[in-house]
Amino acid sequence: MAVQDKLYHVLGAKQFSRSELEELFAASRAMEDVVRAGGDRRHAGRIMTTLFFEASTRTRLSFESAMNRLGGSVIGTENAAQFSSAIKGETLEDTIRIITGYSDLIVMRHTEIGAAKRAAAVSGVPVLNAGDGAGEHPTQALLDAYTIQKECGGLDGLSIAMVGDLAYGRTVHSLSYILANFKDVKIYYISPENVPIPPSVKHYMDDKGVRYEETTDLNAVAGSVDVLYQTRIQKERFPSPEEYDKAAGQYIVDAELMSRMRRDAIVLHPLPRAGEIAEEVDADPRAAYFRQAQNGLYIRMALIDRALQAE
Amino acid sequence: MAVQDKLYHVLGAKQFSRSELEELFAASRAMEDVVRAGGDRRHAGRIMTTLFFEASTRTRLSFESAMNRLGGSVIGTENAAQFSSAIKGETLEDTIRIITGYSDLIVMRHTEIGAAKRAAAVSGVPVLNAGDGAGEHPTQALLDAYTIQKECGGLDGLSIAMVGDLAYGRTVHSLSYILANFKDVKIYYISPENVPIPPSVKHYMDDKGVRYEETTDLNAVAGSVDVLYQTRIQKERFPSPEEYDKAAGQYIVDAELMSRMRRDAIVLHPLPRAGEIAEEVDADPRAAYFRQAQNGLYIRMALIDRALQAE
Amino acid sequence: MAVQDKLYHVLGAKQFSRSELEELFAASRAMEDVVRAGGDRRHAGRIMTTLFFEASTRTRLSFESAMNRLGGSVIGTENAAQFSSAIKGETLEDTIRIITGYSDLIVMRHTEIGAAKRAAAVSGVPVLNAGDGAGEHPTQALLDAYTIQKECGGLDGLSIAMVGDLAYGRTVHSLSYILANFKDVKIYYISPENVPIPPSVKHYMDDKGVRYEETTDLNAVAGSVDVLYQTRIQKERFPSPEEYDKAAGQYIVDAELMSRMRRDAIVLHPLPRAGEIAEEVDADPRAAYFRQAQNGLYIRMALIDRALQAE
Repeated sequence: MAVQDKLYHVLGAKQFSRSELEELFAASRAMEDVVRAGGDRRHAGRIMTTLFFEASTRTRLSFESAMNRLGGSVIGTENAAQFSSAIKGETLEDTIRIITGYSDLIVMRHTEIGAAKRAAAVSGVPVLNAGDGAGEHPTQALLDAYTIQKECGGLDGLSIAMVGDLAYGRTVHSLSYILANFKDVKIYYISPENVPIPPSVKHYMDDKGVRYEETTDLNAVAGSVDVLYQTRIQKERFPSPEEYDKAAGQYIVDAELMSRMRRDAIVLHPLPRAGEIAEEVDADPRAAYFRQAQNGLYIRMALIDRALQAE
Repeated sequence: MAVQDKLYHVLGAKQFSRSELEELFAASRAMEDVVRAGGDRRHAGRIMTTLFFEASTRTRLSFESAMNRLGGSVIGTENAAQFSSAIKGETLEDTIRIITGYSDLIVMRHTEIGAAKRAAAVSGVPVLNAGDGAGEHPTQALLDAYTIQKECGGLDGLSIAMVGDLAYGRTVHSLSYILANFKDVKIYYISPENVPIPPSVKHYMDDKGVRYEETTDLNAVAGSVDVLYQTRIQKERFPSPEEYDKAAGQYIVDAELMSRMRRDAIVLHPLPRAGEIAEEVDADPRAAYFRQAQNGLYIRMALIDRALQAE
Repeated sequence: MAVQDKLYHVLGAKQFSRSELEELFAASRAMEDVVRAGGDRRHAGRIMTTLFFEASTRTRLSFESAMNRLGGSVIGTENAAQFSSAIKGETLEDTIRIITGYSDLIVMRHTEIGAAKRAAAVSGVPVLNAGDGAGEHPTQALLDAYTIQKECGGLDGLSIAMVGDLAYGRTVHSLSYILANFKDVKIYYISPENVPIPPSVKHYMDDKGVRYEETTDLNAVAGSVDVLYQTRIQKERFPSPEEYDKAAGQYIVDAELMSRMRRDAIVLHPLPRAGEIAEEVDADPRAAYFRQAQNGLYIRMALIDRALQAE
């Protein structure tokens, strides 16, 4: 167990201090240069396992690209739930105890809250959480925060609107935890009434002294924020299609809404989108969501590099 | 957009001129030497994404082998349709906008006609079309033509019989377009009456001045052609199992048919086969279909090399 | 065919002589040092295809890790049965004839007995059998034997209990064949009465002069063996859930059973387990099953190395 205590696991957004975040952002920035130069070979011979118990093509490809850009190899599974010994009743712990011998790093996506922590507890190599059910998706939150830092020149003093299904959207929870490390941040939680930001997130923000406001009115807030973080609203959360349509329709980012926003504001989205940002917005320079997706590569390169160095 | 115009996309068979084809065939021939020497490392550090929205194991493995033989790395998905954010309603364009940041080259298989063109329109890296629905499968047509060139010493002046379901079999369409670049080619389109070669292909051949003939009688033609290009006949195209059996039975390449063919003719098939070439034919030196499959590796190496050089 | 005769295929456990096994175990031991040193690049540029017609995540990842640790590349498929041209009626032989041109080595998992042999008959590159239906799984048997050799200091003179479903569990059949190469081995076949070790295995052991005993009573034997090789009992083999529960309950390895075993004995299991070894046993130094899984990597590295050298 002594060995495992020294491993650099990335399990949740709360584990990061401000100085760690700043170090990570600087490392990510350096990775942009590495990619521009065609990658390097610093981790040649190292192997990463992508152990995905549910599919997430973009996240997986982003991690695999990151490892390849640093010279390493990847083994893995697109969808371990359908295929692996999990079907035969193997525990996650047993799977990890075995996989740990095959590679230098495990990137895991799982369907259950807390799975990443359970994996890290028995793993002999670093574990990077690529999402565990309704739990955490820390690398998404890190790339979100990195994007804000790059686009806005810093995170202190910003006002950020998080929009959509805030009850079940884990990215807004994780991003909130990251933002709590910075000064004078103001968050607007904007959601339909049936999917508000959960009390647990609010308690955390209260503890950290972060100012926030809850509202259902996007139009009233749009003009005053530095960052509009849009997310999806899932149909199945609503009692009827009519109520869904009514709620979803209120939160579409289109040219009209963009015209109310500040000239130096940005729009983010964890993607995929499904109508909640109109395509007409893509050409607006404030539409930062594709740059945000690209930043996932740099953040993941930095995290992989950190994990393999620490090992 | 200026950057994208310089990219080397392979979208359809019609895009190739005779001189481009000859250059490609020469490059493919050189790749045979590269493979014989155990591959090289010319694209070490480059990454190819195989984005397959439907499965095609052989085509995918052929591309992945080609990239590996040139020293590059591969990330990808066996079956993106089941797994990816497509399920959540993401457009192909959004998927490509994101994937484009993860690799230097995208090889895409899709279920919809025109998907490759749509992908290329928004991609920041070259797109190689590995089949888009009932549309095009240009790398198959290129390896077919390369095989004919190698086996017959050239393409000018050849007579070629295309046999089977010519209505829905996209490989014969794409191969026809390629052949239209060469002189004095004569094509025999041999099919059951309910699945003839489509008017659009015939118009193209008319425009290019290519001679062709339509018939249902394979036996009458077999003795006079340089190339017999056999394809599958799909049961579901026929009104009844009886009519299918009658049609399919007419077009089986077996020892008896081979005895009618010229000594210097060859038999091709895009594979997989399902009874339309008898196994007894495999030992005949004129059975070139496994050599043809192997040529797919060299053509794809040449295309990957061209795309990565042009970038 | 002459070329193929020189290829180093691994098709079944019976193909190995004692001297070949000893050579393989020495090579595997050397691979432990290679892994400890971070791998090497001896097979850089070589390509291995993992052709899995049914999923077996752990086995596949173990092979892929092994190839990567030796510097090679991997192409492959997680689950060829769902995806490949097999659906379109392609024979295994045709698939292999095509795949053989894409790589230097094929690792195949199939659902049918004898599939590996059929593949090897037409393959131009070595075939390593990663399990063919109810047939053989030779690399599992090799890693089992290697583990016993390492843990017990040799295989001669050992007494080994094989426990569980001995009728359908192919690992115990293959391991029996391997053990028949060694001197003074005594095997206890311990199973419920409805799933005994098959006559074919007993005949083989008789021919080779190996002593064995059949019993249903694990408790009576546990105290006298060097190795307890536990396996799963599958519910569907029993006429009723009650009979299954009764049978399975008799063969659980727990702290109580461990207390009856010798201090220098070991417990093995091919994994995954599903209750037949209690978790409380994991901390016992005699619980060798996770070390056993790890040994799979070294055995597969040695086999890959041997196959690529012989080529």
